[in-house]
Amino acid sequence: MPFHYPNGKLYLNDAKDNPKKQPKNQEVRFDNRGMSLEEEINESNRYYLAHDIAVVYKKPLPIQIVKVDYPKRSAAVIKEAYFRKPSTTDYNGVYKGYYLDFEAKETKNKASFPLKNFHQHQIEHMRHCLRQDGICFVIIRFVSLKRLFVYPATPLIRAWDTQETVQGRKSIPLKTIETEGFEIHYALNPLIPYLSAVEQLIHYLESRKGVHYGN
Amino acid sequence: MPFHYPNGKLYLNDAKDNPKKQPKNQEVRFDNRGMSLEEEINESNRYYLAHDIAVVYKKPLPIQIVKVDYPKRSAAVIKEAYFRKPSTTDYNGVYKGYYLDFEAKETKNKASFPLKNFHQHQIEHMRHCLRQDGICFVIIRFVSLKRLFVYPATPLIRAWDTQETVQGRKSIPLKTIETEGFEIHYALNPLIPYLSAVEQLIHYLESRKGVHYGN
Repeated sequence: MPFHYPNGKLYLNDAKDNPKKQPKNQEVRFDNRGMSLEEEINESNRYYLAHDIAVVYKKPLPIQIVKVDYPKRSAAVIKEAYFRKPSTTDYNGVYKGYYLDFEAKETKNKASFPLKNFHQHQIEHMRHCLRQDGICFVIIRFVSLKRLFVYPATPLIRAWDTQETVQGRKSIPLKTIETEGFEIHYALNPLIPYLSAVEQLIHYLESRKGVHYGN
Repeated sequence: MPFHYPNGKLYLNDAKDNPKKQPKNQEVRFDNRGMSLEEEINESNRYYLAHDIAVVYKKPLPIQIVKVDYPKRSAAVIKEAYFRKPSTTDYNGVYKGYYLDFEAKETKNKASFPLKNFHQHQIEHMRHCLRQDGICFVIIRFVSLKRLFVYPATPLIRAWDTQETVQGRKSIPLKTIETEGFEIHYALNPLIPYLSAVEQLIHYLESRKGVHYGN
């Protein structure tokens, strides 16, 4: 039996009862499943965890809590709090004994990735983790190109450090990312199979162990 | 010039102006520097980071944000939020290429460490990390004994899994922790040099690689 609102309008409790909404949802899903890059990575991480492939989490936002109410018989309510600047990157975890540490960033640009997407503290954190032999990178999405890359921290930090110099640039050209990065192709399970690109990065890093420049 | 409150009481803006408070503070500092175990570990982590020894952070508390105000010309204020249950342990990071993952717990008991200090989700998280060859443990402080240990996740999980059985116990005896764990001795820099105990744990784990039971 169909239900109606007091104004007589039909109540639709399911998308399948609503022919207008359905095609639009499907269309969005075809593009990027209607999810943000963060949600897509979180979903991929849940897949990796459930299949014992890796343990990776997004870190919670750091919050400065000022005031908390403890109402009787219900959960504590934070009534005043402020966002704090994170000291690290957003994601970390463990994969086959390797420490993984990364950021996820998107751009609407088509030819390059602007460095202004990063903050100094993220670069410094990656620098520290690299010194401890962590596997550090950024997952970059070119939104309009629908292309995704794992781009290693080492060339990213090099670009960051030289951006103010004469030869420096404020962005990393797509061509450079294609050469130095590892492309990820959207899949079903997981949605963003970034670990296959990370696996290539690990092989690359292992193959260069003991190779030093300048000394 | 001394300041006074409207009621005539002297305003003391510094502990050194307040002879009553000073000795008490010093007394607390002698025991455990007046810091919680968490603060002591955070301070040790800052030392390790500053000296490029390891990169370890405590994860922020996960918060469900419901309402945020954006006042003009000042920082966003969170006006309603709730604490969420964490899915992981409190600390993780990287040390010489090893993924570290741990909890910090204290007990006032003198003879054993009660398992009720742990939650199921923390045990499950450690189980997942161990399968990825992470270095997982708990830093246990026996408050009244002033003793600290790094206790590995493997015997902890074994004790957790068998606590309901006939041979099982609801706590881990201190003697067992002395045998299977690695004692940490308070120092100056860092306050809790837990990485030397972790180093012993890593050597122990490496020495047993390839040793399997039951097959």
